[in-house]
Amino acid sequence: MYIKNAWYVACTPNEIDDKPLGRKICGESVVLYRGMEGRVAAVEDYCPHRGAPLSLGQVIEGQLVCGYHGLEMGCDGKAVSMPGQRVRGFPSIRSFAVVERYGFIWIWMGAAEAADPSTIHNLHWADSPDWAYGGGLFHINCDYRLMIDNLMDLTHETYVHATSIGQKEIDETPSSTRVEGDRVITSRFMNGIEAPPFWKMALRGNNLPDSQPVDRWQICNFSPPSHVMIEVGVALAGQGGYDAPADKKASSIVVDFITPESETSIWYFWGMARNFNAKDKALTAAIREGQGKIFAEDLAMLEQQQQNLLRLPTRKVLNLNIDEGGVKSRRVVDRLIAAEQLIA
Amino acid sequence: MYIKNAWYVACTPNEIDDKPLGRKICGESVVLYRGMEGRVAAVEDYCPHRGAPLSLGQVIEGQLVCGYHGLEMGCDGKAVSMPGQRVRGFPSIRSFAVVERYGFIWIWMGAAEAADPSTIHNLHWADSPDWAYGGGLFHINCDYRLMIDNLMDLTHETYVHATSIGQKEIDETPSSTRVEGDRVITSRFMNGIEAPPFWKMALRGNNLPDSQPVDRWQICNFSPPSHVMIEVGVALAGQGGYDAPADKKASSIVVDFITPESETSIWYFWGMARNFNAKDKALTAAIREGQGKIFAEDLAMLEQQQQNLLRLPTRKVLNLNIDEGGVKSRRVVDRLIAAEQLIA
Amino acid sequence: MYIKNAWYVACTPNEIDDKPLGRKICGESVVLYRGMEGRVAAVEDYCPHRGAPLSLGQVIEGQLVCGYHGLEMGCDGKAVSMPGQRVRGFPSIRSFAVVERYGFIWIWMGAAEAADPSTIHNLHWADSPDWAYGGGLFHINCDYRLMIDNLMDLTHETYVHATSIGQKEIDETPSSTRVEGDRVITSRFMNGIEAPPFWKMALRGNNLPDSQPVDRWQICNFSPPSHVMIEVGVALAGQGGYDAPADKKASSIVVDFITPESETSIWYFWGMARNFNAKDKALTAAIREGQGKIFAEDLAMLEQQQQNLLRLPTRKVLNLNIDEGGVKSRRVVDRLIAAEQLIA
Repeated sequence: MYIKNAWYVACTPNEIDDKPLGRKICGESVVLYRGMEGRVAAVEDYCPHRGAPLSLGQVIEGQLVCGYHGLEMGCDGKAVSMPGQRVRGFPSIRSFAVVERYGFIWIWMGAAEAADPSTIHNLHWADSPDWAYGGGLFHINCDYRLMIDNLMDLTHETYVHATSIGQKEIDETPSSTRVEGDRVITSRFMNGIEAPPFWKMALRGNNLPDSQPVDRWQICNFSPPSHVMIEVGVALAGQGGYDAPADKKASSIVVDFITPESETSIWYFWGMARNFNAKDKALTAAIREGQGKIFAEDLAMLEQQQQNLLRLPTRKVLNLNIDEGGVKSRRVVDRLIAAEQLIA
Repeated sequence: MYIKNAWYVACTPNEIDDKPLGRKICGESVVLYRGMEGRVAAVEDYCPHRGAPLSLGQVIEGQLVCGYHGLEMGCDGKAVSMPGQRVRGFPSIRSFAVVERYGFIWIWMGAAEAADPSTIHNLHWADSPDWAYGGGLFHINCDYRLMIDNLMDLTHETYVHATSIGQKEIDETPSSTRVEGDRVITSRFMNGIEAPPFWKMALRGNNLPDSQPVDRWQICNFSPPSHVMIEVGVALAGQGGYDAPADKKASSIVVDFITPESETSIWYFWGMARNFNAKDKALTAAIREGQGKIFAEDLAMLEQQQQNLLRLPTRKVLNLNIDEGGVKSRRVVDRLIAAEQLIA
Repeated sequence: MYIKNAWYVACTPNEIDDKPLGRKICGESVVLYRGMEGRVAAVEDYCPHRGAPLSLGQVIEGQLVCGYHGLEMGCDGKAVSMPGQRVRGFPSIRSFAVVERYGFIWIWMGAAEAADPSTIHNLHWADSPDWAYGGGLFHINCDYRLMIDNLMDLTHETYVHATSIGQKEIDETPSSTRVEGDRVITSRFMNGIEAPPFWKMALRGNNLPDSQPVDRWQICNFSPPSHVMIEVGVALAGQGGYDAPADKKASSIVVDFITPESETSIWYFWGMARNFNAKDKALTAAIREGQGKIFAEDLAMLEQQQQNLLRLPTRKVLNLNIDEGGVKSRRVVDRLIAAEQLIA
């Protein structure tokens, strides 16, 4: 079960620049491509003629052409033409509302006519010259909700990411969770601690000393369908923490777009947006590489956790204080899915 | 569902020259080997003693000997002997009628006693010194009928094989299809066109100019159970086309023996027989290599098409004019399967 | 179906020296590790908090700590603690009785309280300075009973291991089988024969001539749940065979611990214990390498046999004289499983 009436990240622009991309999203096979004037388009990855995958075709003069027998498919899912054949009466295939914005291609998995681009998750930093962004994509064989749990409970950093961002104080400092409509916010503030290795690197990247005590914060923001933006950072201790002036801290936003592929697999778009030394491309690359290594540490854990849950379906996972963010996020997901079911 | 009372290509002789070969054909596990005096034989790939695969055994003095405990299996499926044991009362396993002819090993998947070798598909070129043949074998995860469709509608060459044998004129020139008993013939003639790259190579291989307009033909011959022989060629324009004298054309027969492995996989024996420069082995090798690359282009398309059809079983493929050859071939297959069911 | 109330070999000590080991045994996912004072422990590979695999955790001060969120798991399956959380009320997970002995880690798959270490299979040679041991571990996709059959009928050596330990005389010499309680013993004695290559190597390794006739013996000992110890050797002919003095023979014990992973896969711990030239480590390594190559020859046969049996479930394997050892061993297994079912 997925929230359908929502904007998911389908891919990054570079994935469709050269040729169409076939990708399964929320259980549906979709082909994404650049149509007329480079505008992004998406239809079912299924040629109505013989069932060939349209993603093996190519875009010719802005039209998606099936790579098997040349059927030209409109971005509305209606067959346009085919050399020497009549295909206008063919049944339509699904077309999807898609938008290119903030450096991502967004797809609406509900009825296209209900799609409102103004509801795309706002990334205020994406078009600002004061910010830099680097990220990547992982395919992980786990339920998207397990990844939400993962990101809303950062105590796992102490164990999964012990050598980079983990530290004992995360475990020792309670977090607090609040719900605002469909959003869930889980925060943790740790003051006067030593920065872990990743943050020492970030401090140096912002020309700050890495040997002084710092105040560290983690503010996890869940919003539907399955986005988790995490404000993270460290400031020299006593300078105001989260509110410290820019030249006293290194802070960033961990970006997590979780796009379900199936009930037990996801496309995981991860990245980090920062507003210090934004023009330093070497720093962007170094952070991206570091984050990629750190986030890869979650893969085996999530995939084997998923296997355990599939193997023992009658057991229930248990919820502790630290799980409050995940629990409340799942409640939002469940409520929205139920509301969609009611209408459908 | 498969036609059982028919001769399929099981393998090529070199596949059984050194040791027995285990191969699944029409859903049945078969072991093919050379028995007494090198004669080809085939039985179930199952030792009645403990179920071991006989294909892991060896042929000793013309007898297939199980590689696990030494049971000697007769080519009629009756256990012959076993050191120190009594096995003559063992239940028989299936034996298959097999014939070596035309450079292929043929297998009859129906009752062996009904097998008539005179009904093996006639390959008039196979034993002629005026002809040369080169070919190969692919394993493809698709229904054998999808491959019949593929070969009976060559408009796909324009898209799948755009850089070698495809050209726009294939799309633009209607084909005609006729049925003769259990055979289906789909023909297309394109006159006064430029030869595509593969045929330019063939023209040069026959010492003809490659820069003049040509008349090109494609005559697809389906015959049961799932053989498709395609007469293809180009002649210098105005010299009679298909009927042009041998020194004015380059022509050949595309050979396609489709042997079902399961409902969704095939052994695909492909090749090309030509009657020009038949003694030029380098040319044979060059054509074989070129054809192998071209035919490999179909694999991803067929396998992903199969996946789409499995994923969406309620949808029906749509039939256009260009599908007439495939549609009529499938009708022959369906009719013959139904007739076998009636008797059985 | 497995015998549960029995000691299986779970792993070798080196597999858990550095970190916990996750292994599926008799269908259950188990994590094996060294706890307090290096003592071996085993619990379900499932953290009661969120279902994470405990085998991805680590041992800290003798306690198994979940690698996801730091839950500390007791070796009795009761959650001990978790930073900042209350977990003492968590439902217990299964814990298993485990014992380190004879160079193996043994696990009891029944209720831990019924486990009696005195019933662990006695390996009299394991702690003796007069004996040397070398061995390895294979994962094989076959029913554990197929491996018991394999080891209780050594006529397969003639075919599967023709170039090393096989010889025609094995086939030609009947074996005799007797049952002693839950043990099954199948013996074969071949006198005045030429030693096959592996045994010629062993004779030379014991400073004996390899060109004289020998008396050879094979005594297969099955004991529950699925252990097969095989006394094998050759003595210079006429010196007493099995009972010949130590300086007239080369003999050893083939060690086979078959631990079911699932109904159709096993962990196969194989090795050889010998009491000649026990201090010659190069000889131990040479024998181990030779045995590894020989035993690897069984893999393809067993796995394809298993596939055949799964494909044709209604057929029954047939039993000959040579199968008597396997048949009677299976009867013991069946009887013990039935007895456990009755109690359960």
